[in-house]
Amino acid sequence: MAKTPYKIFLTEEEMPKFWYNLKAVMKELPDPMLHPGTLKPMTKDDLRQVFCDELVDQELNTKDQYIEIPEELRNFYKMYRPSPLIRAYCLEEALDTPAEIYYKFEGTNTSGSHKLNSAAAQVYYAHQQGITSLTTETGAGQWGTALAMACAYYGLDLTVYMVKISAEQKPYRKAVMETYGATVIPSPSATTAAGRAILAANPETGGSLGCAISEALEKAMTTENARYVLGSVLDHVLLHQSIIGEETRIACEKYGIEPDIIIGCAGGGSNFGGLIAPFMGDKIHGKNKIHFIAVEPASCPSLTRGRYAYDFGDTGRMTPLLKMYTLGSGFMPPPNHAGGLRYHGMSSIISKLYHDGLIEARAVEQTKVFAAATMFARQEGILPAPESAHALKVAIDEALKCKETGEKKTILFGLTGTGYFDLSAYRSYNEGTLSDRIPTDEELEKGFATLPRADC
Amino acid sequence: MAKTPYKIFLTEEEMPKFWYNLKAVMKELPDPMLHPGTLKPMTKDDLRQVFCDELVDQELNTKDQYIEIPEELRNFYKMYRPSPLIRAYCLEEALDTPAEIYYKFEGTNTSGSHKLNSAAAQVYYAHQQGITSLTTETGAGQWGTALAMACAYYGLDLTVYMVKISAEQKPYRKAVMETYGATVIPSPSATTAAGRAILAANPETGGSLGCAISEALEKAMTTENARYVLGSVLDHVLLHQSIIGEETRIACEKYGIEPDIIIGCAGGGSNFGGLIAPFMGDKIHGKNKIHFIAVEPASCPSLTRGRYAYDFGDTGRMTPLLKMYTLGSGFMPPPNHAGGLRYHGMSSIISKLYHDGLIEARAVEQTKVFAAATMFARQEGILPAPESAHALKVAIDEALKCKETGEKKTILFGLTGTGYFDLSAYRSYNEGTLSDRIPTDEELEKGFATLPRADC
Repeated sequence: MAKTPYKIFLTEEEMPKFWYNLKAVMKELPDPMLHPGTLKPMTKDDLRQVFCDELVDQELNTKDQYIEIPEELRNFYKMYRPSPLIRAYCLEEALDTPAEIYYKFEGTNTSGSHKLNSAAAQVYYAHQQGITSLTTETGAGQWGTALAMACAYYGLDLTVYMVKISAEQKPYRKAVMETYGATVIPSPSATTAAGRAILAANPETGGSLGCAISEALEKAMTTENARYVLGSVLDHVLLHQSIIGEETRIACEKYGIEPDIIIGCAGGGSNFGGLIAPFMGDKIHGKNKIHFIAVEPASCPSLTRGRYAYDFGDTGRMTPLLKMYTLGSGFMPPPNHAGGLRYHGMSSIISKLYHDGLIEARAVEQTKVFAAATMFARQEGILPAPESAHALKVAIDEALKCKETGEKKTILFGLTGTGYFDLSAYRSYNEGTLSDRIPTDEELEKGFATLPRADC
Repeated sequence: MAKTPYKIFLTEEEMPKFWYNLKAVMKELPDPMLHPGTLKPMTKDDLRQVFCDELVDQELNTKDQYIEIPEELRNFYKMYRPSPLIRAYCLEEALDTPAEIYYKFEGTNTSGSHKLNSAAAQVYYAHQQGITSLTTETGAGQWGTALAMACAYYGLDLTVYMVKISAEQKPYRKAVMETYGATVIPSPSATTAAGRAILAANPETGGSLGCAISEALEKAMTTENARYVLGSVLDHVLLHQSIIGEETRIACEKYGIEPDIIIGCAGGGSNFGGLIAPFMGDKIHGKNKIHFIAVEPASCPSLTRGRYAYDFGDTGRMTPLLKMYTLGSGFMPPPNHAGGLRYHGMSSIISKLYHDGLIEARAVEQTKVFAAATMFARQEGILPAPESAHALKVAIDEALKCKETGEKKTILFGLTGTGYFDLSAYRSYNEGTLSDRIPTDEELEKGFATLPRADC
């Protein structure tokens, strides 16, 4: 076989036509999502109040291993996909490792991350259903940007409730969403009853993701022909993200690449779940022995220090209850610059796979993550998002282990996005002012104390 | 022939192994660069005081149509190239035009633009020559970022003099250069005699590109084993950028694409010169009838309202004299957000081709450019740099002409980079506060008054 190229691009004909539904191959399913009022499993009718019909079907589908990607959506994907699978020749040389290192790079679109994969799908189905406007919340802004891009393309109105302090600290994130035609409202706002109540109680608040979710949900429920959309955690989001894993699998087969280790960062779990989906399916079927590693910040260690329990998906305690590894919806992580990983919970699918011993989880400290990110940027020419650099850090650790042992392992990791909008974090790292503080046991207990009574 | 894919990526084997030297095929050469003291043509020895030997040879090479790209440099290019040639299916549909629109997209690397093509080459040759440090100046920051990336890879020290006001307005541009290990010094500074003199006369100045060039040149001349590097205008920079045109030509041949019109934005001319090089060569040889259009801002109209004269390349009047279309090195353009196009002069090669009638030039106003950029972002999913959007604006104009006439022309343009670091400009556009003021005749006359006496 010829030398692997630096960058593997599939042709359009080779691009996946199906998403991979991991739930259809899991030996045991995750416990179901529960209605917070009745504590009974959420029905399709319950979910259709909030989400588009087709997305509800996908959310609850446990039977079909492959779900077809509609042709029109595949054409949207062709605008920015396939994403490259890159052989890190330069990094390998700098590390002087016998390991082969590959990364699937999702940052080559304007939203800067993999988020567009699910945003495009969710907006496509909303458009098909005749929905005319969508609402969502955003913190760091990657999800809001991706959704604004998809809504601009399909012609839907979009209202983004952006945590007020983020909107002030990241005016350019707001500007790019507005360029794509979205209405960006700093939250809390006077546009909803939830926002007005919070403002009345605390006029100076900088807002929170919990509050922004409350406003976005209220706006969707009170706007004609509107729905609410979410960018991670849920099973249908992982399904859409499986295009990452499917493209990776096809590229690996084309070039005879057989990963020994697959690594991804995990916040809500959608990128990690999407990347590993077909490989994990094969592992469950006994077809490979890949070692999967989910990497999280030491400051927000849902998998490594959390509890496996039913919890709310949001800090506002409005969502259904999800069985997952969680730090409690009231947990407040110490400062950390990987905004996309500052989430108290974790996808139910990933949580179940972890609980069943099919995944390893590792927590890493942020100064080590930025050191790895800086080295990678200098060797491979791509400035990674702080979130993505968590995976990268562990990939380097594993490659250095191979250097010690002399093993020629094949290491593959997901580089979910670029750090172009995260340069204040890099600046802090360059100036040596980043903190590595991890939560104390007392802080974790405070978070666990916010778990709902339905805990089991 | 099959339907053209959305994105054409060459394989590594198909990537160009040679740069295209336009001067070797021009029927008449541009007038030579003159020594500002003697007014005689610059010799290799003159130039070697400032630039690396190999770059000096390339600068003065008028004989070799093809110049080999060293293999090690081709491996660097493989990290981020080939860049895609994209069929703008979605834009065509939105415009409802019979025209076919293609764009060569150079924004898929962390520097965000084509600048890396020449930065990598210049640093490679400096490294080969045993040079250990480089100096340059940067205004908007794209060139400085590209150079920092290349220096990090080859292990050279880099000092970037960044116009002080830019360093303050764009702290993240400074942060990304520092992440790549560059020393970024706001100019004027106390690190050079030139800077100290300016600071003594005017301690509160925000600096200027002319001053930053003076400091970078002085630093190179007074540092052991150092050289100065420049990111546009010069012939060797156009040569390196011809990789854009060569890749485009190969992709066109592979898919049977025959452009009727090729459009690029032109500031110093390196991107435009690189894109058109092989196509212009064929035109000179009578092998095609392509219509070439250079697009510049109406606020800084070097080609469309400038004079064809010898002038300094910098506002500090330290460089050799170049025969070019110029507004005078003392010309001050009205406010414009395309920093990379705010240059008083133009590449000698492009100037000569324009003078000989082989290129059309068009000047466009910035609000129209941002309107085109916004439409493009929504249809094609890529947020363009304001510079690149100048080309895009004229491509849309030409496609709409085709709609009127029913002609099915093939339009190709260069999308040189992304607008991720230009969101304050998009914000101003969204808020309706961008000005379209163009220079008055009096303002042009003031600029022309700064032309050197050697004018001919």
